[in-house]
Amino acid sequence: MKSAILTIGDELLGGYTLDSNGAWIGRKLMDIGIRTIWKTSVGDIKGEIVEAMALAASKADIVICTGGLGPTRDDITMDAYCEFTGATLEMDEGYLELLRERFSRRGVDMPESNLNQGLVPDRGTIIPNSKGSARGLWCTVDGTWLCILPGVPTEMKSMMEETVLPELEQMSPNELIITNIRTTGVMESQLHDLLESAMEESAVNIAFLPGFSGVDLRLTAGDESAVAELASNIYDLAGKYIYAEDWVTLEQSVGESLREKGLMLALAESCTGGLLGDRITNVPGSSEYFAGSVICYSDKAKINLVGVKSETLKKYGAVSEETAAEMAAGVRKVFDADIGVSITGIAGPGGGTDEKPVGLTCFGLDDGEKPFTRSVQFYRDRRFNKELSAQTALNSVRLRITGRI
Amino acid sequence: MKSAILTIGDELLGGYTLDSNGAWIGRKLMDIGIRTIWKTSVGDIKGEIVEAMALAASKADIVICTGGLGPTRDDITMDAYCEFTGATLEMDEGYLELLRERFSRRGVDMPESNLNQGLVPDRGTIIPNSKGSARGLWCTVDGTWLCILPGVPTEMKSMMEETVLPELEQMSPNELIITNIRTTGVMESQLHDLLESAMEESAVNIAFLPGFSGVDLRLTAGDESAVAELASNIYDLAGKYIYAEDWVTLEQSVGESLREKGLMLALAESCTGGLLGDRITNVPGSSEYFAGSVICYSDKAKINLVGVKSETLKKYGAVSEETAAEMAAGVRKVFDADIGVSITGIAGPGGGTDEKPVGLTCFGLDDGEKPFTRSVQFYRDRRFNKELSAQTALNSVRLRITGRI
Repeated sequence: MKSAILTIGDELLGGYTLDSNGAWIGRKLMDIGIRTIWKTSVGDIKGEIVEAMALAASKADIVICTGGLGPTRDDITMDAYCEFTGATLEMDEGYLELLRERFSRRGVDMPESNLNQGLVPDRGTIIPNSKGSARGLWCTVDGTWLCILPGVPTEMKSMMEETVLPELEQMSPNELIITNIRTTGVMESQLHDLLESAMEESAVNIAFLPGFSGVDLRLTAGDESAVAELASNIYDLAGKYIYAEDWVTLEQSVGESLREKGLMLALAESCTGGLLGDRITNVPGSSEYFAGSVICYSDKAKINLVGVKSETLKKYGAVSEETAAEMAAGVRKVFDADIGVSITGIAGPGGGTDEKPVGLTCFGLDDGEKPFTRSVQFYRDRRFNKELSAQTALNSVRLRITGRI
Repeated sequence: MKSAILTIGDELLGGYTLDSNGAWIGRKLMDIGIRTIWKTSVGDIKGEIVEAMALAASKADIVICTGGLGPTRDDITMDAYCEFTGATLEMDEGYLELLRERFSRRGVDMPESNLNQGLVPDRGTIIPNSKGSARGLWCTVDGTWLCILPGVPTEMKSMMEETVLPELEQMSPNELIITNIRTTGVMESQLHDLLESAMEESAVNIAFLPGFSGVDLRLTAGDESAVAELASNIYDLAGKYIYAEDWVTLEQSVGESLREKGLMLALAESCTGGLLGDRITNVPGSSEYFAGSVICYSDKAKINLVGVKSETLKKYGAVSEETAAEMAAGVRKVFDADIGVSITGIAGPGGGTDEKPVGLTCFGLDDGEKPFTRSVQFYRDRRFNKELSAQTALNSVRLRITGRI
């Protein structure tokens, strides 16, 4: 089965909003074996929406539309749905009453503009919305399964997970076994070479999906044991690069390991400016294993806050493995943590020299036993250098916990 | 003039890559008065690309395509361009020689796969690429101006700015005056009410563009003085919410003010976990005004690292204006900075109580003169609560520097 995704809203075309809904849906569909072949964004213009629905329906078995179901005048997806499917709108007095009650419980009268959220087409099945007031709809038009969902990400996601994805899985039981294996710290071409022999022996389809901070491997086959066998071979050949499966992030995976082992982590971030702390604390419950961080952006802060010796800075410079080692050891003590991790580098575009060019980044890890340091040269812009540095440091925690460094 | 954007690549459909190119192009075109009415992503399938080019050309005066110009087998945009425009490929020996030289200067032989980057269609004008080896092309097909560009963002952006945008501006001199005014800390509806009288008196077209952390206002008219007059009225009525114009970010704007005044900023971040430090240090040269940050994720860290009194934590709790005040004052001292700013809140989803629900966030600012604290209740998910908290804290620096708090 093939799908098309239609995202609706002027803000998607004017460049004010990234189409993250479209990406999320594409990936969720892929997880249940449905490939997206077409994705379109159109503005809040009824004719354009109807035309895009028709085009998508002509190309795909499944069409998912999001956006334009709110209460304001420019929310016209429901009208477009009616025109496309030949449905007419009726007032659902029961739902309207429910909406009114919801508003009055918050102590406000329901605005006039919300009246239209009580309207329901006489064709299609309602998709309930447990997080908001705009309901969705699905129906079948000339053999294509089509649904409309609101554009608010939390609402769209819960409606996809509670109703749409189960419905699609029932319609077309996914006979494919799909396993996603996530790697980091290895280039796509290196990984390809590493796995070549295993891939040759296997009939399983394998896709390399390079992201900016790692490569995901998607294994697909009809035969469960074949997938399991290839996966097992991949773990044997490239296990040191694998941090998780499916949608698990590196910060979730490392966090889980720290929690299991009862370890507290502390950071000393220089060039990343807080990015690694931000990533770690995106995981709910991270306070159980994350003690905190010192962002020591200047030499003075490195000396005063995490105890780097001024001689070390003078002799080796702020961007050196020697300084990184002292930062990691120092921050571990300051937070009374089990593991201290440090990052110090030249993010660019300025600040580089012949000897220490932009992108040079030094890392330290100290767990009180075997101090570890490393230098890496990145070649990207400031933001990318920061992202790659945070990823490298976080990965070093995984490597230490698993005894690989 | 209306435009359509076509982004090409399987990775855009599988949800592995956000279509940030499409958003960037949409916004840049809007800046020169060209409205995007259609945006499509297709996979690396020649037939699909040709069909999408034809559809886009039928809808718009300008079509911008990105992606699929690299050296590998799945890069087939050039073939699709030839089929759509009726061109044939020829080898550009001169360019090939240049590519070979480039590789040999790096000490490597040019891989076979790069040969195809020397191919050039006999129809269209080459768009040079100063950042990479994949050149672009533009031509006119049945009255539609169409171009193809590589998908690597740095290459695409420089080619847009160096060649495409100047070309488009020349083709259709933008007679519209466009001014973008950026606000934060105010809801769209509030801002609308504030500006109602000024908008009524003016013939200038004004669009409200709400983002997650602020509302941008786009003023458009043929008459420069009318735009200037409305802009001036907007500054009078809503000046306290305005932080910049055009594409300038809040961290750039605040950074510039700090630099001008010679002030050093230090942060004590709790629930944001480093996000604000990350944003501030995305600006090159931020070390001139950013001293650093302490991410004090636990009570212990708040006491030991930034000197919050344990009685304060006991009496008022970690999420309180009292604690926020001591964090701001403490971190200012620790870093010997001019301004200390603090954030402490409950990002969620856990950790809330009846008295202190998820989303409650307290802020502090201390410049040694007039300490400032504030509490705000956010209602979003963990990530959004973090983003809104970082924005609110950063905005408080702007408000203090401009004497508004």
